[in-house]
Amino acid sequence: MNTTRDQIIQATRSLVEKQGYHATGMNEILRLSGAPKGSLYYYFPDGKEELAQEAISQTTKEVVGRIRANLALFDDPVEAIQVFVSRIADHIELSQFSSGGPLTAVAMETATSSERLNRACREAFAAIQCAFAEKLAANGYAPESAAQLALFITAAIEGGTLLSRTAHSGDPLRRVAEVLALALRSARP
Amino acid sequence: MNTTRDQIIQATRSLVEKQGYHATGMNEILRLSGAPKGSLYYYFPDGKEELAQEAISQTTKEVVGRIRANLALFDDPVEAIQVFVSRIADHIELSQFSSGGPLTAVAMETATSSERLNRACREAFAAIQCAFAEKLAANGYAPESAAQLALFITAAIEGGTLLSRTAHSGDPLRRVAEVLALALRSARP
Repeated sequence: MNTTRDQIIQATRSLVEKQGYHATGMNEILRLSGAPKGSLYYYFPDGKEELAQEAISQTTKEVVGRIRANLALFDDPVEAIQVFVSRIADHIELSQFSSGGPLTAVAMETATSSERLNRACREAFAAIQCAFAEKLAANGYAPESAAQLALFITAAIEGGTLLSRTAHSGDPLRRVAEVLALALRSARP
Repeated sequence: MNTTRDQIIQATRSLVEKQGYHATGMNEILRLSGAPKGSLYYYFPDGKEELAQEAISQTTKEVVGRIRANLALFDDPVEAIQVFVSRIADHIELSQFSSGGPLTAVAMETATSSERLNRACREAFAAIQCAFAEKLAANGYAPESAAQLALFITAAIEGGTLLSRTAHSGDPLRRVAEVLALALRSARP
């Protein structure tokens, strides 16, 4: 493990989550990370795009791990998902609305302007959906239905997080979680 | 109607929708709008933030108008919403994934960094939810249920649009629309 490199990636993740990719400059990353000036281009010779790709990749691993860990807490997938989403709402409030939906802004910003970051975001959303689908499939949902519901869960959480950060309240996401649970129960095999 | 002013706002809306607020510079807005150099600060003395606020306000009016017009096409609110969402999916594909979810990036980018733009986005999402809630309430859903389902519809569309633009395909949003219709039918009064 390389501490300076990790500090740089961690600072990038936090800034991109808060304000998006384009607002995040190399100088701000340097300042927040506390890394020495030359280290940015030493570790990331391709610059900001390479650094953001690594940040997205680490975020993906962490988010997928967190989803899996939370879904494992309850046998019932609907209960597990509902509790997980309410934790995201708590997290958004604790962060003073600067955190939550770490991929949303960067995915929209770079959908057509950076092949590299678009691919990273695409892989991220696929991995996230996979984690939800596995939990549903392990609990009797047919594979095709589990995949479609996993897509739906991901969309609802992303949209609810957007509304909560914008409204400066976890409540929109909490109310989304309630309807989502009803929808998942009515689709139960 | 002032043509130069409108061209500037139109260019801003298009760029912010495509790449977000921070990536969009005054020079790029000038270039795309074809407006003369001095006109930007003449019409928008407060600069980019004021211009973006006006862009968000116009986008809100247009989006709400489009939702109302589409929901009026069918008596059944669920059918109307499903057809409306599938049109957004077509629109995303026609735009080569540079359009759809005009407020998503800017809302995330400015949630904690611009009071002025945060307020504009908050009002936008409230007005959008209102349009959906009215259609549901006019068709027998209880007011509280209509409001919560309208929030859920907005979140699902926002999230589905994000996934579609990232995946470079309208299909994620189309599949979200299918599950959304099932959810709305199961919540039907």
